[in-house]
Parts: sequence; structure tokens; C-alpha cells
Amino acid sequence: MEVTRKNFSSVLPEVEKAINEADFLCVDTEFSGLHASSSFHISSLDTPEERYHKLRKGSSDFLVFQVGLCTFCYNEEDKKYEAKPFNFYVFPKPYSRAAPDCRFLCQSSSIDFLASQGFDFNKVFKEGIPFITSTQESELRDLMEERHKQYKQFSSPAFVTPDSGAEAVTTKGPINVPEEHKDFIEGICKSVEEFLEKDGEENLSLPPCNGFVRKLIYQTVRQRFQSGVHLGAKTDEKKQRYIQVTRIKTEDEMKMKEQEKQSAELAELEEAVGFTKVIRLISQSGKLMVGHNMFMDLVHLLNRFCSQLPENYQEFKAMAKCVFPKILDTKLMANTAPCKDLLPSSVLGDLLNHTSCTPFKPPEIVIPENFPQYKLDDSNLHEAAYDAYITGICFTAMSNFLGGLQNPPLPNVLPDATIIKPFTNKLFLMRISDIPYLDLAGDDVLPSRDHVFHVTFPKEWKAPDLYQLFSPFGNVYITWLDDVSAFVSLYKKDQSATVMSTLCKRDTRYKIMTYELFKNGLPDKESRKRPHSAESTEEEEPKKKKPLNVDAPVFVSRSRSITPPMPEENENKEEEPDSTSEQSSEQKLFEVPAW
Amino acid sequence: MEVTRKNFSSVLPEVEKAINEADFLCVDTEFSGLHASSSFHISSLDTPEERYHKLRKGSSDFLVFQVGLCTFCYNEEDKKYEAKPFNFYVFPKPYSRAAPDCRFLCQSSSIDFLASQGFDFNKVFKEGIPFITSTQESELRDLMEERHKQYKQFSSPAFVTPDSGAEAVTTKGPINVPEEHKDFIEGICKSVEEFLEKDGEENLSLPPCNGFVRKLIYQTVRQRFQSGVHLGAKTDEKKQRYIQVTRIKTEDEMKMKEQEKQSAELAELEEAVGFTKVIRLISQSGKLMVGHNMFMDLVHLLNRFCSQLPENYQEFKAMAKCVFPKILDTKLMANTAPCKDLLPSSVLGDLLNHTSCTPFKPPEIVIPENFPQYKLDDSNLHEAAYDAYITGICFTAMSNFLGGLQNPPLPNVLPDATIIKPFTNKLFLMRISDIPYLDLAGDDVLPSRDHVFHVTFPKEWKAPDLYQLFSPFGNVYITWLDDVSAFVSLYKKDQSATVMSTLCKRDTRYKIMTYELFKNGLPDKESRKRPHSAESTEEEEPKKKKPLNVDAPVFVSRSRSITPPMPEENENKEEEPDSTSEQSSEQKLFEVPAW
Repeated sequence: MEVTRKNFSSVLPEVEKAINEADFLCVDTEFSGLHASSSFHISSLDTPEERYHKLRKGSSDFLVFQVGLCTFCYNEEDKKYEAKPFNFYVFPKPYSRAAPDCRFLCQSSSIDFLASQGFDFNKVFKEGIPFITSTQESELRDLMEERHKQYKQFSSPAFVTPDSGAEAVTTKGPINVPEEHKDFIEGICKSVEEFLEKDGEENLSLPPCNGFVRKLIYQTVRQRFQSGVHLGAKTDEKKQRYIQVTRIKTEDEMKMKEQEKQSAELAELEEAVGFTKVIRLISQSGKLMVGHNMFMDLVHLLNRFCSQLPENYQEFKAMAKCVFPKILDTKLMANTAPCKDLLPSSVLGDLLNHTSCTPFKPPEIVIPENFPQYKLDDSNLHEAAYDAYITGICFTAMSNFLGGLQNPPLPNVLPDATIIKPFTNKLFLMRISDIPYLDLAGDDVLPSRDHVFHVTFPKEWKAPDLYQLFSPFGNVYITWLDDVSAFVSLYKKDQSATVMSTLCKRDTRYKIMTYELFKNGLPDKESRKRPHSAESTEEEEPKKKKPLNVDAPVFVSRSRSITPPMPEENENKEEEPDSTSEQSSEQKLFEVPAW
Repeated sequence: MEVTRKNFSSVLPEVEKAINEADFLCVDTEFSGLHASSSFHISSLDTPEERYHKLRKGSSDFLVFQVGLCTFCYNEEDKKYEAKPFNFYVFPKPYSRAAPDCRFLCQSSSIDFLASQGFDFNKVFKEGIPFITSTQESELRDLMEERHKQYKQFSSPAFVTPDSGAEAVTTKGPINVPEEHKDFIEGICKSVEEFLEKDGEENLSLPPCNGFVRKLIYQTVRQRFQSGVHLGAKTDEKKQRYIQVTRIKTEDEMKMKEQEKQSAELAELEEAVGFTKVIRLISQSGKLMVGHNMFMDLVHLLNRFCSQLPENYQEFKAMAKCVFPKILDTKLMANTAPCKDLLPSSVLGDLLNHTSCTPFKPPEIVIPENFPQYKLDDSNLHEAAYDAYITGICFTAMSNFLGGLQNPPLPNVLPDATIIKPFTNKLFLMRISDIPYLDLAGDDVLPSRDHVFHVTFPKEWKAPDLYQLFSPFGNVYITWLDDVSAFVSLYKKDQSATVMSTLCKRDTRYKIMTYELFKNGLPDKESRKRPHSAESTEEEEPKKKKPLNVDAPVFVSRSRSITPPMPEENENKEEEPDSTSEQSSEQKLFEVPAW
């Protein structure tokens, strides 16, 4: 079901019902880009913590355009699932002149990809459901209350009111009307006086003028006409601001008018919370939230609808756990034995095909007729709600397959089944093949990297120089950090022990140390100070170019990525995860530990 | 005329003709945002140089979505102008996997404004004309040539070729095929062998595999089959990359195939230059380029289609002058006596109305029928081509008015007229009322600011404390820098002399110095190190929040902007220029020097 600003409030109750009756929920998001710059590209040697920092710094400035939610409810009688796919278009339209005016980043290739999929950008920008984070909401509430106190102060004849707002008030005071404005202000007072004398129009619109002059008008008019008049700002068709004067019979009428205005403002803020309400419903339900390769989705959902991502990695885990107490990543499930051995590809579209035939048992699914009757061809792929829908199908197919391996076999596996537990609150890590997952509920598994070495060398060195250097130990895999340093990983791990002793003092042009020593030697445990890491690049880039210009780094990394040169366009895009090709050149170079 | 990727190449000759026959050109751009954060908001005390740095740092990461070009050609016979409005949709679609993948910024309020004007975002993202800067073009050409050399090397049996590519080649070398890939690579070679033996298919598609494995295939196959075979990369429907093997009868056929591929690549790059060609045509024509309030348009045109904006202000002037030798800003014309005194508003839409009646003489205009027959109502306002069109009308109306004041009166003023000269290569400066313009062709006029003082004070201080402090000198205008410092400007400039002596040692809680002393005391002449300036904020922000999160600063500045408190939403948006309300609270506080 398509949900936009137009039908959001009317559909919300149905969303709430669907969430509350569901056995599990599936989510997917479409966003405006992947990496703010190539310096945030993921590496096969990232630790989960380093990966988080890359996502936080390099991805959280992109915007979520579309959120797909598909609820799955199992029906014991007919052994079928009822699926309700909701497709939310979201956009942070500033709800008022006081609201936060969000800046967000777009990546041309991502926008172009969405465009090629027929994504409707006009719908996002013109009908997107607004949203603000919970943090922003409370800040706005405070400001509104402060403002309402100020109204109160002004609507009473006394300049200083004895209420809790008094302190704020006494520290402020009127400005003297500058010479050049005196005539204008006098003119205004005169017109207000005439307006009040003759019973006729109920409103008087003052000429548009700038904020400073409006302040003078409020101040002066309120002092001259202590009752019988109400002032409020309006915007004319040219978006110019002007003051509207309204005739007030009694103080009560005055208070009433302001009461109305204030409750209208509160309603406006309620509306501004918008899509964040859906995330709260998901959170409050405490139900299993399933996603495919969902690390980035999770980061965006938290950052855009809850509050800014914490700098501290442990705080991030705590925040995620607190907002979404139970999550499951189908890409992790698909890349873990025994499913792994039966699935040639875990790209979502492929996964659906592979899990739809034996030994997997896709579930029977019913979609209520007021929802889109999705076909399982690729026609809707990359529509958030469809992706959430097929994620749910893959999840049940894989769980039921695992259930079938039990003794006795489980006919239909539901989220509370014990065989699901090993997968909960663990995130798949793209390209990292020696770390099984990011563990939101505990400490991460950090493997031995004794076969990895950090080497610094002359600028002129290229890949072959490093292959040459390490030739005594067989083939190596190089992870470039910059022009003068790289991680070198041995394929033959048993050779690791002799590397340091053999290479250490053979040559003065290069410097080599173990991966472990390099890490521990770092000033910053979060290792965000290393050449290839985010912050340091942030510091370096502005010298060379404007913060967001990321062409140069691409060029740099290109010359590295072609060794030996290939008769194709450069391959450095291979270093970049994208929703279509999740294969990685490292995938097969390490063994995934059987855990 | 609407121009998109679909009709660009066919329309380009007509654009060239229109530019070459024109008397002057008008331009306007629509972009994705105004200020990257509130720290880049313009201040009434900016110098032209400071203003440039704010635009460069705070605006150049936004994208140009639409460029309007309207050519005006005067017909001596019927005394009419022929106007040709072109409306270009532009988008930096990466033209290949090797092309720069531009990241750009969007501002919600700007996107929402365009949406409210019925702007077609789908057209931009799906049919936008591509573009790359001249700098990027030459970088890409170099890379392509390098790559072509590599082909050459690979397509010849000898591994090292004696040509100019040799150096690059000898430093590189083959990788040993890792154990786990040996079988796969052997299998590939076998299938290639079989394919070559039996005459049948002309092509053999190898299974999709990742970049590393493809490198191994290129290397091995080329060594085994030194002729009779050509390898090239293809992308399948799943966007997975695979190698296609083609049977080659002779070395010549081989060379031919590569020749084709290379010329195809060159054509692709030509196409990628895209809209930049139009800017080059404008530049080469050397004709007068007219815009309305065009500082930001100029900055975007240079930055997106020529090359990255220089850090140095003088270099920017040189660059602008070199690319667009003659420009004119109608907003400056409208805000300069004698026009100024006859024009209540210089907002483009208003300006058109005001200049369409006496004493102004709007020109007679003909639009060829293959162009949109624009009506002069507001229905097309904010469509770049329409805005460029009416800018041209305002320009001629005002020039002809000035011409009428001459003795003898000039009937029709053309760009080479001497009365136009005072306006050429000068840019209007929003909100700065004591500096007449930014002079691209010479040194800027910098006024005395002896009536302005820099004050630092305790955090608790609010506006009234400053009003209080300066009360001996009459009313003041406060320009906040941050929570503990501000510029204070006297309305009564004649009081300036006594300020320092009176206030200097009266109190230890605050520190006061003259504007001049504050400027000269700065370590950085470009004054980019001051609290309210861009760079320092860039440095501070990351500590508090992620680089692009600009909500907090908005909240901060709000609390400042309400003094005395107003019963409206906060007014700090007034500080922000937007195409609709260009009024400013400072406008009337200073007199515009008659120059």
C-alpha cells in the first residue's frame, strides 16, 4: 500500500493494527547515496567498530527516500501467512518557519540507479511524509512552550508577568524606535486607532515589512492599545510577512484567540512528527524486525527517526538494542552454514529464486486485496515494500528449511523458535569474510589477523613491488591504505610466523609491522586516525578541495586498483558495495569460520 | 525551448546560432539549496571577500538542476528584440564506471520550494543533460590514453612493449594465480581452447566473476593464446560483470576491434562533457551575460562547468573575468539611482511589473514559434528560462530609461552603450547596504565602518544588555557573531568617536574594540578564522555533531533572534536570502552611498 503525506494520517491506524497482530516485521529502505566519499569505502579488514564509524561518518548524511514495511501474520488454521506491504514515501519538509531545515547528501550514481528503476522523485519531494527525530521533537516542544509564555506576557497589560516566564522576561526589554522608523510606526498606530474606532472590518492587514520593523510594531502597538486588539503574523501570496490586526471585544476573547493559535501550533507539531510515529510503533511492538543486509538500513532508521548516531560504538549497540530489541539479517542467515552451502548468491533477488525451490520451502502467502498483489518476478525489485516483502519470504523459507533439519522436524518456524536465536541481533558485514557478524547484543568476534602485516614504503612502489617483497611466503592480498602504506595478507597463513624475522631488517626503504602491533600502537583505540580512515581524510581533504568533491580520491584509488592493468574501465567500483553486485574480490580469499 | 539529454545534441547547433547572433545573453539557474549550514548565512557586515568565501564554502556543494539561457537579438528594421529562451535540465549522471560520481547537497526548504513551483525532479534525474568540468574532462582524457596504452601492451604477444607505455609496463607484473583459483582459471582456459577449435559461435561468454578473478583471466588467457582471441568486459542483466571472448582471425582484426572500442570511448567522453559545451559557447562569444542577483548563479556556473572555485578571492575574480568577460546584474541596476528611486521592490517578479510602466519603456519582443510563447504573468516564474527571459526585459527597460535621460536621448540602448559601462562586471551584494557592489574588474569599494564595534561579553548577556551598554550613543544594530561576541553598529554615526573612550575601561566584564582593529588584528586576512565564519565552524561542528547536521545551529541562532520576543515563529529565516523575500532588517539602517 502506497503511503504519502496525503493519506498518512488515515492509514496510520491500519499500520498500527498490522504491526500489533504480526508475528514478525520486515523492513527495507531506499536512500539517496552510499558513501560521502571514497575514503569511507569499506575494506575487507575493517573491524565491526571501524565499519560502524565509516557508516556513521560516510553514510548518515544521505536521506531515506522510501521505507518499506511488510508485516507477516501466521494463520494456524490455513497454515498461511498474511502479508501487508506498506510503501512509505518520506521527506523532511520543514513544517514551519521554525522547523529544522534539513540538509542532505545525494550521490549521482545512486540517484541514477533509482531513476533507472523508475523511482518517482516527484512523489518523494511533493508528497513525502514529513518526519523529525524524537530529539528534534522535544527541542521544538520546549521552544513552543517558551514562545507561548511570551504570548502570555504580551497579551497581559503588565509588561512583566509574575509567572515562571518572569525571569526570561525581565532580562529582556523594549528597544527604542530608531529615528528613521518613528514616522512609519506612528502611521501604523494611527491606522490601528482608526480601525478600532469605526465598527467595520474584523481584521486590518498592515503593510508587509521586515522582522525588525515588525518587532517595533508589536512592541509599540501593544503598549498603546493594551486591550481590544490582537496581533498575529501572516504571509502574503508573495511570501512576504505582514502583521494582521484583529479587533478583540474582551480579554477572554483575546485569550481564546491565543488558545486557538497555540493548539493549532501543537497540532502542527504532531503532524510534523509524521513517519517517526511508525518507527515508534515498530519499536513499541518489540517484535522481530527482519531486513536483508540491513546494517545501513538500521543506521538510517536510527539516525533519521530516533536521534543522531552516537560517536561511541557501544552506545550505538545500546541504542539499536533499545529501539529495536529483536532484529534479524537474512543476508547473514544466507551466508551461514548450512544455508550458505546451498545458496550460490545471497543478493536479495537471487536469494528469493534459490529459496523458492527444494530443499527450501517457501511459505504460502495471502495479501489482503487492499494491498498490491505483488508477483514474484523482478518487476518491483528495489521498491522498498516489495523488497521487505520478499525478505520475509526468504526468511520463512530459510527458517523452515532449518526447522526441517531438527529432530523432530519443525513444520513452521516462528520467530520465537530456538533455531532463530543464533541469528538475532547480529548484522551481516559486507566484504568482511573473517568476521562472521556484528553482534548488537554482545562483544564482537575478532579473529586472529596474524597473517596480516602493515607495510609503509616509497611512493613509487606499486603492487608488484609488494608481491616481490612477500614472494618468499607465496601469494598475498594487498589492501591499500594510501600511496605509501598498505595491509598485506598472506594466503598461506602458516607462513606468518617467519615474515617479521625475514623481512624486518632486510631493507631500509620499507617498514613492516604486525597487524596487531599496528592497531595497538594507534593513539586512538577507535583507530579513526589512520590514513585510510574517515576523520583523517576529512582533515586532509579541505586543503586539496571542497569537502564534498570526491572525484580526486577516486582517481587516486583507480591507479592503484589496476594491477595488472585490465582492458576494462577501472574496477575500483568493485571496492564499493552496491545493491546489485555484492560479490567481492576478497570473499574467497579467506575462509568463513564455521561457528 | 526545453532541452534534456534526449534532444541536447540535436538542439546544440541552434543554441550556438542563437548565441552567436545575439546582442546579449541572459542566464538564470535553479539549484538544490542555499546554505550548507546557518554558519554560512550572510551578514550585513560581510565584505565582498567574506561573502565570496561564504558562498564558496557554504553553497558550492549544492547542485544546479536547471539552467535558463535567453538570447536577445535586436532587429534594427522593426525595432524589436527576438528572444530565444532555452530551458536546460542538467544532472551529472556518471557516464561510465570510470566517471566521477558526484556527491551533492540538497536543502529541504529549497527542494520544497521548487516542488511547490511544480518543478519536475523526475525530468532532472532521468533526462538531465550530463556535464563534467573542464578539469575533470582533461583528467579523464589522460586516464583514457593511459588505459589505451595498456590495451596495446596486452594486445601484443610480447609482455613488455618498447613504446612510450613501456615504463609504466615494466614496473608492473603478473600475479601468481592463488591456489584456490587455479582450477577455475584452468577450466576457463579449457573452454576458451574448445571455443577456438570448433568454428561456430563468434563469441564466448565466460561466467560472471569478481574483478580480481577477471584480472587473473585476462592475464592467463592472454599469455596462453597470444593471438586469435579478444577479451572484453560486459555487464549482464543482473549488472554482474563477465568477460566476453571473441574469435579474431588476424592481428589486424584485433587492432581494428580495439580501435573501434577506443573511438567509442572517446565519443562517450565527448557526450559526457554535455552541458559544459553551452557554457563554453557563452564564454567564447564574449557577449554581455545578464543575470538578476547573479552572484550565486555565477559561483555555480563556474564551479560546476569550469573548474573548482579558487580559495583565493582575487583568483576568483580573475577566473570569472576570464570565463565571462562581460556580465551585468540587473538587481544592482535596480538598486542604483536613478532606477532605485522609482522601484519599490527589486524582487524579479516585482521588477518586471514596475519596469513595464512609465517612466520605463519595456521593449517590444518577438519569440520564434518553436520556442515557448511566455506570457508575462507569474505562471512560469522560477522556471530558469522564463526568469532569464524577464531579466532581459527588465534590463532593456531600465537601460532604455537611462538612455532617455541622456542628452540627446538614446532611443534604444545596446550593451556597448557607455551608460551601461558603470554596471558591467559588478555584482549586487544581498543585504550589504554600505557597500555598493562586488567589483569583478577592480578593487572593491570598502566603506568606513568607524561606527561599528566588536564586543565580547559574558554568555548570559542578551540584546538588552548591549542596548543598555550603548545607550549613551542612541540606538544600535546588533550583528551576532556567537554567544559571547557581536558587532554593534551605531545609528548615529557622529557618536562613533567617543565610544571607545567612554566604554573602554568602564567595566571588565566586556571587551570592546573598533571594527578596523578587530579586522586587522586577525591572523588571516581572509578573516576565515572568526567565530561566525565558515571554516572555524567546520572545525567546531564535528565535535558536537555530524558535519551536515545543521539543526542545532538553527536552534542556537533562534534564541538570539527573538529580542524582544515576538508572538510569531522565530524570525531567523529573515537572515536567509531567498528568492521570494529579499527584504532585510538592515536595508534601511544604513544609507546606500550615492556613487
